[in-house]
Amino acid sequence: MIDVCLLGTGGTMPLPGRALTSLLLRYNGHTFLVDCGEGTQVQIRKSGFSMHDIDVILITHFHADHVTGLSGLLLSMAKSERREKVTIVAPKGGTEIIRCLCITAPAMPFELEIKELTEMKERFELYGLIIDAVEAEHSVLCYAYSFTLSRKGRFDAEKARTLGVIVKDWKLLQNGTSIIAGGRTITPEMVLGAPRKGIKVTYCTDTRPLPRLTELAMDSDLLICEGMYAEEDKLKMAIEKKHMIFFEAAKTAHDANAKKLWLTHFSPALDDPQSYSDYIKAKFDNSLIPNDLEKIELRYT
Amino acid sequence: MIDVCLLGTGGTMPLPGRALTSLLLRYNGHTFLVDCGEGTQVQIRKSGFSMHDIDVILITHFHADHVTGLSGLLLSMAKSERREKVTIVAPKGGTEIIRCLCITAPAMPFELEIKELTEMKERFELYGLIIDAVEAEHSVLCYAYSFTLSRKGRFDAEKARTLGVIVKDWKLLQNGTSIIAGGRTITPEMVLGAPRKGIKVTYCTDTRPLPRLTELAMDSDLLICEGMYAEEDKLKMAIEKKHMIFFEAAKTAHDANAKKLWLTHFSPALDDPQSYSDYIKAKFDNSLIPNDLEKIELRYT
Repeated sequence: MIDVCLLGTGGTMPLPGRALTSLLLRYNGHTFLVDCGEGTQVQIRKSGFSMHDIDVILITHFHADHVTGLSGLLLSMAKSERREKVTIVAPKGGTEIIRCLCITAPAMPFELEIKELTEMKERFELYGLIIDAVEAEHSVLCYAYSFTLSRKGRFDAEKARTLGVIVKDWKLLQNGTSIIAGGRTITPEMVLGAPRKGIKVTYCTDTRPLPRLTELAMDSDLLICEGMYAEEDKLKMAIEKKHMIFFEAAKTAHDANAKKLWLTHFSPALDDPQSYSDYIKAKFDNSLIPNDLEKIELRYT
Repeated sequence: MIDVCLLGTGGTMPLPGRALTSLLLRYNGHTFLVDCGEGTQVQIRKSGFSMHDIDVILITHFHADHVTGLSGLLLSMAKSERREKVTIVAPKGGTEIIRCLCITAPAMPFELEIKELTEMKERFELYGLIIDAVEAEHSVLCYAYSFTLSRKGRFDAEKARTLGVIVKDWKLLQNGTSIIAGGRTITPEMVLGAPRKGIKVTYCTDTRPLPRLTELAMDSDLLICEGMYAEEDKLKMAIEKKHMIFFEAAKTAHDANAKKLWLTHFSPALDDPQSYSDYIKAKFDNSLIPNDLEKIELRYT
């Protein structure tokens, strides 16, 4: 199971009642945060998640509305008695920028490991989640991320019995360890079916739509995608500012065969994003224009 | 008249319902901001003041809870079409720290003039307010500020007439310009009484109490003073962390002959500062434990 909370839905600047866009994911006791604009730590408190448990912070890009809350968050994590390492994943050049942003928080009581992304597409695993980072198209270097919880194939108990595997060794095989039974090696593949569908969440802001982002989002259970502007006549501005209109987010969700779409990163000029609810559902049925702190538990299906 | 709004009352970290301490003053169309922690720009929006009109930003010290909102505020001011110069007053070394904090906001469409304080006591005038900066006692270099609107003496019309000053020259004398009447020079001092009491606001956080801060706050109409901890048994911690307990703020107000005291910069561990309202009034009668966005109009008395 993955718990998801979209902490805010705003873009550009925080507003009363609309915090800046950032995402919390929790899996197996580990918490992942994507982006940390001004006010994100307050939203984490409101969400009921614990900032103490944040193991990984992923930064999409170094615009102020996505990162200026970082130093305050790290200081508050320190005050919450966090002592374990925190990993920050960020675009190339991030180490120096983060050092600068955190000039008022120079010494942390935990290790800060900064992983800079250097390729257009990168895949790595942290605390049991596979993370794909793909370069987006924005006015500065920017990455979209997907988080995948893979799921092993079904355990074939009948086959295990036939192969003479004793019950206490089943768990080892389920967890990927080969064992010896009846004098021969039994590998997990011999008793597990084909991998089953896991859980996938994709987070995609700030960017123009791109085929490689559709690919990143392919078969996501939840695609969280920017929609800076609502109306189709804002397309020219979206192209110029390297953002998306709602329709483009819906098309990305459709083309990626996503199960659900949440729009986010609304322009401060967009007074009432929810008024476009019917519009966006007509474009992609399982769409939501969320409020800040929208939550969902994603389970294996 | 000076309009005052205490934007937040929290210390250390922003909390849901308690923003970080910062102050807005408005005089004669010019707005002064003291400190700019994470979330200050949202509080400005809530206050009804315009961030577009902020001409001066004074920083007490470079702890995260007092400055990390600076880059976001400046960006939002730029988006509000601000094009006039903004003056930042900050402790020594501030230019480099501000450059670092604003790394995500490198180019502003207005001039940013940074004035670094270098002396223990400095006095300067900006947009008609006399500002006194006095070094506080905190774990890093920190300044307290007072803002004084001076008031000239009463114009003695009878004396002006006796000296042969024609009515159309009265305004010149009232504004400090000498004139010629009946073949001789008439100076403003000849027709103005002694300067009258003006309006004074003092802002004092983060610091231990000090005689020079009492002197800074002398005869203030409003003293806004930190009270990080409420109870007297927290004195040892206050000394260690270079903060004050409520009682020390009340004593400062009393010794400085302040008219009003507002406490602020409450520890996140202090759940209900207002519950100490009777306690603090018993120490200094005209005390207030304000909520965020507390406002007052200060007029000549």
